[in-house]
Amino acid sequence: MYLIFEGIDTSGKSTQVSLLKKIYKDAIITKEPGGTKLGLKIREMILNEGVKSHKCELFLFLADRAQHYKEVIEPNRDKLIISDRGFISGMAYAMANHPEFEIDFLLELNLFALDQTLPDLIILLKTDKDLLKQRIDKKSEDEIEKRGIEYLLGVQQNMIDILNHLNIKYRILDANQSIEEIHRQIKGLLS
Amino acid sequence: MYLIFEGIDTSGKSTQVSLLKKIYKDAIITKEPGGTKLGLKIREMILNEGVKSHKCELFLFLADRAQHYKEVIEPNRDKLIISDRGFISGMAYAMANHPEFEIDFLLELNLFALDQTLPDLIILLKTDKDLLKQRIDKKSEDEIEKRGIEYLLGVQQNMIDILNHLNIKYRILDANQSIEEIHRQIKGLLS
Repeated sequence: MYLIFEGIDTSGKSTQVSLLKKIYKDAIITKEPGGTKLGLKIREMILNEGVKSHKCELFLFLADRAQHYKEVIEPNRDKLIISDRGFISGMAYAMANHPEFEIDFLLELNLFALDQTLPDLIILLKTDKDLLKQRIDKKSEDEIEKRGIEYLLGVQQNMIDILNHLNIKYRILDANQSIEEIHRQIKGLLS
Repeated sequence: MYLIFEGIDTSGKSTQVSLLKKIYKDAIITKEPGGTKLGLKIREMILNEGVKSHKCELFLFLADRAQHYKEVIEPNRDKLIISDRGFISGMAYAMANHPEFEIDFLLELNLFALDQTLPDLIILLKTDKDLLKQRIDKKSEDEIEKRGIEYLLGVQQNMIDILNHLNIKYRILDANQSIEEIHRQIKGLLS
């Protein structure tokens, strides 16, 4: 089973992935972007090497995704794969940063990168303005968070729109619930 | 005017670009892939960093192309731009190496990378088996050349097929002619 956690920063994805890691000890735990050695180098390139074209940036993220698919997903399709983010995040941020990119074209590019392989389940942890504000105040601002609350909520809405656009199984869980309660619901979905 | 020279290795592109450089001193002389600082790093990545997916490699070349367009082509559209290779080579090698890639999809990706901007003229230097054999014998074998004569002629045929597929101005010049004669024909095309 191939499971992707999606959600914007502070929604609690990494916490839930860590909890699952303790239960499913043979699971392949991965992440996007930067889930491979090459992917980390690509990420480094995007951050530090003067990418001047939005399309160049998009292609670099897609290169990372294609490599991750070939190196991590394809050889482990018979195992439980749990990924912290995936192509939904890739598309949602691309749409927020570059509204000129059309959703259907982005989807075509991403499906090509993924050899048309969609995950079996996507779990989106959905946050809201109050929770987001409270959690960002606690956390040091990073590159994405400093773009602001409205930006992040826009990205989250893109994620929901993309999920609705796809023929795929997904569940949206309320990130306002306790860590334990969310964990319990996720275990229910996996059993 | 935006001019691209195309042709397989040993067809004489670089020689002709050098001759034009002496005449058109204000021209922007460039090349693909690797025509920008970021592009050189991407090229390095493709050669040395364990790219495991054909699609990853394709996206990296497209990232290079998008960056080259934004950094070199777009700001110089009012000048004479002379490029040693371009998207025709990109597509032709991709098709030769990975026959599963469809020409129309490759074209869509490349046009997206280029903001739909096609060159004003493409000059293809066309070689043949005998000339190719003779020139490769003289030259030390590099990564591409060692794949063999038939491979390179297949790439050349792909280039011609792609040119025929496009609504674009192109000229095919016989690489068997003398350097001076080819140079004379090119000057005629540019005047």
